[in-house]
Amino acid sequence: MTSIALISERGVLSFLSAQLETALPGATFRHWPETGAAEAEIAICWAPPKGALASMPNLRLIHSIGAGVDNILSDPNLPDLPVCRVVDPKLAAAMAEFILWGTLYFHRRFDEVTANAQAGRWQRLEQTAAGDKRVGILGLGAMGEQAARLLRRVGYRVSGWSRSPRQLEGITVHAGEAALDRFLGKTDILVCLLPLTPATARILDAERLGRLPRGAGLILVSRGEHLVVDDLVGLIRSGHLRGAILDVFDEEPLPPDHPLWREPGVLVTPHMAGLAKPRAIAEQIAENIRRLQAGEPLVNRVDPARGY
Amino acid sequence: MTSIALISERGVLSFLSAQLETALPGATFRHWPETGAAEAEIAICWAPPKGALASMPNLRLIHSIGAGVDNILSDPNLPDLPVCRVVDPKLAAAMAEFILWGTLYFHRRFDEVTANAQAGRWQRLEQTAAGDKRVGILGLGAMGEQAARLLRRVGYRVSGWSRSPRQLEGITVHAGEAALDRFLGKTDILVCLLPLTPATARILDAERLGRLPRGAGLILVSRGEHLVVDDLVGLIRSGHLRGAILDVFDEEPLPPDHPLWREPGVLVTPHMAGLAKPRAIAEQIAENIRRLQAGEPLVNRVDPARGY
Ligand SMILES: NC(=O)c1ccc[n+]([C@@H]2O[C@H](COP(=O)([O-])OP(=O)(O)OC[C@H]3O[C@@H](n4cnc5c(N)ncnc54)[C@H](OP(=O)(O)O)[C@@H]3O)[C@@H](O)[C@H]2O)c1
Ligand SMILES: NC(=O)c1ccc[n+]([C@@H]2O[C@H](COP(=O)([O-])OP(=O)(O)OC[C@H]3O[C@@H](n4cnc5c(N)ncnc54)[C@H](OP(=O)(O)O)[C@@H]3O)[C@@H](O)[C@H]2O)c1
Repeated sequence: MTSIALISERGVLSFLSAQLETALPGATFRHWPETGAAEAEIAICWAPPKGALASMPNLRLIHSIGAGVDNILSDPNLPDLPVCRVVDPKLAAAMAEFILWGTLYFHRRFDEVTANAQAGRWQRLEQTAAGDKRVGILGLGAMGEQAARLLRRVGYRVSGWSRSPRQLEGITVHAGEAALDRFLGKTDILVCLLPLTPATARILDAERLGRLPRGAGLILVSRGEHLVVDDLVGLIRSGHLRGAILDVFDEEPLPPDHPLWREPGVLVTPHMAGLAKPRAIAEQIAENIRRLQAGEPLVNRVDPARGY
Repeated sequence: MTSIALISERGVLSFLSAQLETALPGATFRHWPETGAAEAEIAICWAPPKGALASMPNLRLIHSIGAGVDNILSDPNLPDLPVCRVVDPKLAAAMAEFILWGTLYFHRRFDEVTANAQAGRWQRLEQTAAGDKRVGILGLGAMGEQAARLLRRVGYRVSGWSRSPRQLEGITVHAGEAALDRFLGKTDILVCLLPLTPATARILDAERLGRLPRGAGLILVSRGEHLVVDDLVGLIRSGHLRGAILDVFDEEPLPPDHPLWREPGVLVTPHMAGLAKPRAIAEQIAENIRRLQAGEPLVNRVDPARGY
C-alpha cells in the first residue's frame, strides 16, 4: 500500500484529493503535518515547508503539482531523491493562447484602444503587420516552444533564448548568456517563460529591459522573481517601454492595495496564463508512482543541480 | 489621358492623392464637386452623394476605395456600369488578427480579467480549451474565410454561414436563411463579416441574437447597420449575452457622448479591424483602370443586383 503525503506551507492541497484517490486506488493520503505524514514514501508538494522533506525517513519520490520546481529546490535541506514535475500539454496550450492574446494586445495597441474606449475617444491608430513584429521568448522549454510555434503560425517573427542551442523551424534561437543582449535588442514583445533558478532570478532588471528597443512590451508569465518591478515601472514611466502584462508576482495573490494594480501601462492578471486540471495532475503523479514501483524510468524528472 | 473624379460626401479623399498620382502617371484628378469632375471616366468613391454618379456622362467605371460597396449601391440612381471594390490580403490578415484577439478576449474572459484588474481584485477564473469554444462567422467571403482559417489554426471549433454552400477544410459551413438559427444555436462567439445588403441589414436583432446560447459574445466588424444596438444592449443587460466588441456603427465616428462607450459588457473600437494602406488601394484601382483600357476583365467586381 503506497503512503503519500501532501505537503504545502500555503494551505492544504485538498483540491487534489478526490482526483488523487481516483488515480491511486488503495493509496493512503496524509496532509502534512498530520500524524503519519512523515512516514510517507511519496511527497506531493507545492512550496513544502523548508526541512519537511529531509525529515521523512521513508521518502523515495518528490513530486511537484505544477510545472515549476523552484518552490521545492529552494529548500536548502532537500534530500537527494528524484524530483518530478507536471508537464501538461493542455496547460502549455492555454499558456500559448494567453501569450498570443498579450502579443496581439501590444501589436494591435489594445492598451491604447481600451483606454480610448474608456475616455469615449474615437482614434484610429496606425496598423502594422504581424510579420513586422518581433516576438522574443526567454525559455524554449515545454511551454516556450509551444508558444513560439503558435505565434509563428499566426504570422509573427519569433525568436527565442535558451541555455543550449537548438533548431526550431522558422524560429531564430539564441543560446547562452552571451547572446542575451543581442536577442533583447531585436525584440518588440518580450515573453518570459524561464524557470526560476539562481541563474535567472531578477534577470529582468533595468539593464536587461533597457536593451529592448523603445516601445517594447513585456509579458511575464514565469515567476515574479524574474523581474525587478521597480526597474520595469521606471522604464515604462520614462517612456522607454510601452507596458507590461504581469501574470506572476513575488507575493501572490497580489495584495489589493499594491500599486501595480493602478500603474499606467501595467495589466495585472491573477496567475492564470496556464492552469493544469486536477485530473491531469493526479494522473501524471499516479503514472510516476507506478513507474517508481515497477522500477521503470520516471518521466518529467528535473535536475536539481541545474535548477529545472 | 485618363480623367478621374474622387467622390465622397464625407470629405475629400485627398489621403489617396499622392499614391494615386504615383500609380496612375499622366491621369488627371478632380475632387468632386470641382469643375471638370463630372466629365471624368472613372469615379473613385466612398459614400458618393446620391445622384452624383448618374450625372457623369462619360463614366465607365465606379471603384470603391474599400472592401464594402454598400455606400455606393445605396444610390437609387446608380448608373448601370461596372462597380469594383478593393480586396487586400493584408487588410484581411489584419481583420483576422483583430477577430482572433476578440475571440481570445471572450474565450479567456479578459473582459472580467480587465475589470478585476481595475478593481484590484485577484480572482482566478475557470479555464476552458480553445477546442471547446465554438466560433461562428457570418459571411465567408474574402475576409470571413481568412478569419475562419486562422481561428481553426489556433484550435477553435469554427463554423460559418454563407449564402451558397461551400467546402472549407475543418470548418462547418451552413448555407442560406433556413440554416441560420441552427448555426446561431451552436455559436459561443459570433463574428459578423457580412456585406451590408437589403438581406443582411439589421440581421442581428433580438430574435437572432436571442438564439445564441447563454453567455455568448459578439464581434461586429462588418457594418453598424447589421445590428439593432438596443436589442444587443437588452440581451447583455438581461444576462443572456456576455458582451460585444463593436468596431462599426451607424454613425462614425461614434459621438463622444454616445451611451455605448460606457455600456457594461461593450467594448467600442474605432473601425480599426482592418485598414488598407493607401498604396494598396491606389495600386488595385490603377490595375482595374489599366484592364478597362486594355479591354481585359476587371477584378474584384461586385454584382449590384446581389448587393455585394
Ligand atoms: N503563469 C502560469 O500560469 C504558469 C504556469 C505554468 C508554469 N509557469 C512557469 O513557466 C516556467 C517554464 O516552464 P517550462 O515547462 O516551459 O520549463 P522547461 O521545460 O524546464 O524549460 C525551460 C527553458 O528555459 C531555458 N533556460 C533555463 N535556464 C536558462 C538560463 N540560465 N539561460 C537561458 N535559458 C535557460 C531552458 O533552456 P534549455 O532548453 O537549453 O534547457 C529551457 O528552454 C515554469 O518554470 C514556471 O515558472 C507559469
Ligand atoms: N471593420 C473593418 O475594419 C472592415 C474593413 C473592411 C471591410 N469590412 C466589412 O466586411 C465586409 C465583408 O467583406 P468581404 O470582403 O469578406 O465580403 P465578401 O467577399 O463579399 O463576402 C461576403 C460573404 O457574405 C456572404 N453573404 C452575403 N449575403 C449573404 C446572405 N444574405 N446570407 C448569407 N450569407 C451572405 C457571402 O456568401 P457567398 O459566399 O455565398 O457569396 C460571402 O461569404 C465588407 O462588406 C465590409 O462591410 C469591415
